[in-house]
Amino acid sequence: MRYVLLVAYDGTNYGGWQIQKNAITVQEKLTEALKETLGSRVTVTASGRTDSGVHAAAQVCHFDAETAIPPEKFADALNFRLPDDISVLKSAYAPEGFDATASAKKKTYCYRVYLSPRRNPLKDRYGVHFKYPLDMSKLAEAGKMFEGEHDFKAFCAAGSQVKTTVRTVYGIEFKETVRALGKDLEIYVTGNGFLYNMVRTLVGTMLYYAAGRLTKQALVRSLEECDRNAVGKTMPENGLTLESVDYGLKLF
Amino acid sequence: MRYVLLVAYDGTNYGGWQIQKNAITVQEKLTEALKETLGSRVTVTASGRTDSGVHAAAQVCHFDAETAIPPEKFADALNFRLPDDISVLKSAYAPEGFDATASAKKKTYCYRVYLSPRRNPLKDRYGVHFKYPLDMSKLAEAGKMFEGEHDFKAFCAAGSQVKTTVRTVYGIEFKETVRALGKDLEIYVTGNGFLYNMVRTLVGTMLYYAAGRLTKQALVRSLEECDRNAVGKTMPENGLTLESVDYGLKLF
Repeated sequence: MRYVLLVAYDGTNYGGWQIQKNAITVQEKLTEALKETLGSRVTVTASGRTDSGVHAAAQVCHFDAETAIPPEKFADALNFRLPDDISVLKSAYAPEGFDATASAKKKTYCYRVYLSPRRNPLKDRYGVHFKYPLDMSKLAEAGKMFEGEHDFKAFCAAGSQVKTTVRTVYGIEFKETVRALGKDLEIYVTGNGFLYNMVRTLVGTMLYYAAGRLTKQALVRSLEECDRNAVGKTMPENGLTLESVDYGLKLF
Repeated sequence: MRYVLLVAYDGTNYGGWQIQKNAITVQEKLTEALKETLGSRVTVTASGRTDSGVHAAAQVCHFDAETAIPPEKFADALNFRLPDDISVLKSAYAPEGFDATASAKKKTYCYRVYLSPRRNPLKDRYGVHFKYPLDMSKLAEAGKMFEGEHDFKAFCAAGSQVKTTVRTVYGIEFKETVRALGKDLEIYVTGNGFLYNMVRTLVGTMLYYAAGRLTKQALVRSLEECDRNAVGKTMPENGLTLESVDYGLKLF
């Protein structure tokens, strides 16, 4: 049988999702917990990798196993063995033909920044301090420019190997909350898939444009000519959270 | 001259505000940073202690010094020397006759819980998982009962030495946010002062009453007879944040 898990993790202490030699990863911790639970090693496959230090509010993954454990019991059985910064929120049988990677239709990431004259330690774990004032209408304008199907080659970290750098961004939304000493800004980016570093570089480009530190011509060149020199700074990893993965069906 | 600071800190790694032998504290870190900045040791006095592991979004403190440093420059000068989990948000000259402890009129604490079937690592640093369903009308009812002037002796940790255990709670407010897998609840408690552990025990008592695990008679006994056996569990420290201190005047 194939099982599906909804997993939240604080990525601070992990080298991202995918198992690798030089860092402890979320996939490794889940694989260990599954091995202890099932008695044998299985492969656990996620909707996609998250990079080192990136968080997930609702990562989706699947694994195959023959076991008498009822599907809804996997969450608690795994949480018993997982460290505190990883939690299985739900577990179920996967629908017929489901694959956590291939079946994913849309993913939404949220990038959190807070605007204030000085750093705030209570916001630094899941958000990033941004000290330049922002023109919110320019931010919305940049969001609209990046929506749609584009070649995002300029927003992809060097050295990544992908067949195509064309991706579709379905929507970019901004949610602003005014606070006593500044404001919090959440940037939600929904797409059919993202290149390595793409969301963090898109966000950096939009923010630097809205802060008057990148020209509109640079934004156009970043998209139309894939000019890597025209994009803004790649924002730090801790501000990024995988918020949801949409499969077009109810999994849990 | 007397200076006033607005300070935010993540209390996770500190033994509370006040300098003590057996733990690293926020007061100690600020005192060290001030000594390095001023060249001599001064005493830094806060609106009140925060307990071990408790956070502050806006602690207020004062110190006296003769220096040529302009008051608004202290924030950056201290932040340069402070660890990342403490940040001075603002600095200024203190008003005539100001004392961070004695001049404080009201303090507001926020206690954060999240209601969901399972733990969520992204909410665990500044909030606490509460797994029992809550009757929100009972929660509001309990909040109203604790408002006003009462002898809160039953809500005070054993061993604390205070002249009186009578305190006035000006208001208790609940802010609920519905999420995909449950809801977030913020409980704001404003008072003229709080006994050791009082907010955490008040919150535990209200939550356990609203969860149907304490009777209304117990709540009445906790207030009218100061019955310590009638109060709910003292909630964990990491859910508590000192949100603001009201001096009845503009400090910054």
